[in-house]
Amino acid sequence: MSRIACIGGGVIGGGWVARFLLRGHDVTVFDPHPEAERIVGEVIANAERAHADLGLPEERGTLRFAATVAEAVTGADYIQESVPERLEIKAKAFAEIEASAPARTVIGSSTSGFKPSQLREGRAHLERIIVAHPFNPVYLLPLVELVGGPGGDDATAWAAAFLKTVGMHPLVLRKEIDAHIADRFLEAVWREALWLVKDGVATTEEIDDAIRMGFGLRWAQMGLFETYRIAGGEAGMRHFLAQFGPALKWPWTKLMDVPELTDELVDTIADQSDAQSGAHDIRGLERIRDENLVGILKALRASQGGEGWGAGKLLPKE
Amino acid sequence: MSRIACIGGGVIGGGWVARFLLRGHDVTVFDPHPEAERIVGEVIANAERAHADLGLPEERGTLRFAATVAEAVTGADYIQESVPERLEIKAKAFAEIEASAPARTVIGSSTSGFKPSQLREGRAHLERIIVAHPFNPVYLLPLVELVGGPGGDDATAWAAAFLKTVGMHPLVLRKEIDAHIADRFLEAVWREALWLVKDGVATTEEIDDAIRMGFGLRWAQMGLFETYRIAGGEAGMRHFLAQFGPALKWPWTKLMDVPELTDELVDTIADQSDAQSGAHDIRGLERIRDENLVGILKALRASQGGEGWGAGKLLPKE
Repeated sequence: MSRIACIGGGVIGGGWVARFLLRGHDVTVFDPHPEAERIVGEVIANAERAHADLGLPEERGTLRFAATVAEAVTGADYIQESVPERLEIKAKAFAEIEASAPARTVIGSSTSGFKPSQLREGRAHLERIIVAHPFNPVYLLPLVELVGGPGGDDATAWAAAFLKTVGMHPLVLRKEIDAHIADRFLEAVWREALWLVKDGVATTEEIDDAIRMGFGLRWAQMGLFETYRIAGGEAGMRHFLAQFGPALKWPWTKLMDVPELTDELVDTIADQSDAQSGAHDIRGLERIRDENLVGILKALRASQGGEGWGAGKLLPKE
Repeated sequence: MSRIACIGGGVIGGGWVARFLLRGHDVTVFDPHPEAERIVGEVIANAERAHADLGLPEERGTLRFAATVAEAVTGADYIQESVPERLEIKAKAFAEIEASAPARTVIGSSTSGFKPSQLREGRAHLERIIVAHPFNPVYLLPLVELVGGPGGDDATAWAAAFLKTVGMHPLVLRKEIDAHIADRFLEAVWREALWLVKDGVATTEEIDDAIRMGFGLRWAQMGLFETYRIAGGEAGMRHFLAQFGPALKWPWTKLMDVPELTDELVDTIADQSDAQSGAHDIRGLERIRDENLVGILKALRASQGGEGWGAGKLLPKE
């Protein structure tokens, strides 16, 4: 059992708190938001329901809110930073963490876009600052992207081993790169989706249906390459590449260009989203999402006699 | 019960055959491939296993292989074209279909890229030729994209009503566009994935893990916009857009550019794919995929007391 400090307790930070806490660790949170305790409490309540539905053992640690960063990180065995995604805010948080945390404690940043070398500017102990980027809801989705940057191998190896013990699948990047891996895909899809709405080809709801009734179901259990390996059939991956290579020359995306997020486009998207999902409040949507995710995770564990997921890959142990 | 003609019996055509057949329709297949019967038979065997695992009723129609397109389409109530994705091959198939099919029978094309106006060039009865683009495995994934093109509203309305009766979710596009909707996203992700492999940031297996352990799980049940609506939290979609809009200016994708599929890159991908999935043959991979998909579909039906999927959306009735 370790003492974890979580700096930032929003949707992502609160998700980290819930994951650590419900797997038996003591967690200290610092967040200056006046309603931080309520917000973190609501995320934990969601996580407890999901945790119970998944049939995981109860082994909750203790939760404490600190009045300062210094108080939160003193004596911490691991520190997770989840402050807003602006470099100057991150830099201020790291300076405060550095002033009080044990000198060798690894600090993982939830940043979705910045590289370790950007996060380390101005710091004294560079190598222990790494990216540990999770996915919402953090208490249910296994993936965490770890980026060590120059000299960060020891810190990522330590973090990978530790985060496995809380049921995560650490993916250690071979190089640091803007937005890591998954968010590059999400950004590409997002840009294309903005075009489709702007050009009146589809509404937000139709785009969501195109994803969740089709390739989204595939991607919950196999990724891009394994799915295409199957599509290549008996002739295999080389055949598939030969067959689909020419499409790279076709005008199949607008991504060479970037749509401008005008007030008009923002209104269109927000209105369509209201029409699509407005009957549920955010808590209601979260509950639906979590029930679905728990069902999917249980189903994937059960298929193949509890042995596998994808081609012999195991879901992380819980 | 209807008589369906399937022109082309590869992976996609065979998947259509299986879906129609196992839901009680009589299906006539034309495919000049010398092993067409074996290939279609294997897809049907996969589909029967999945069908039984899903607990669907047995109501199999009769299956017949025709020696010519004319024999297959004579008297057909619906025709599904799934020949290779080259416009001259499609044109030849449509000419033969037109010569023998009832004049008002709707013809759906499985094309992933072409628009109805391209498919109709040189044909006599234009409006009945539409796009009906499914997703592999066709007998399990509900999505079918329908594109009517100019004058095709009646044909898509008919096809939407009919395809609902075989458990599909028809998504009718508002405009014809290269690659419809879902494949535009797949193409964007594919281009980015090629860059990541080429630049040595991640292997095919690491990319697949980044998808299936993270946002892939989200996308099996909610799409892009509904997920981001939740991410926006209580402040809603406008807040989310304001927060993430600036990322559109950042160098988060390489998609402005297109990687060249050199022999070296093809070798890298094929070798990585072998290392990742080579322990299973294609039939084995298909079986794993289908077991996972059946599990996910059953879980999504069961969550919310069998009532919903995503924000109150229902899975198509079976």
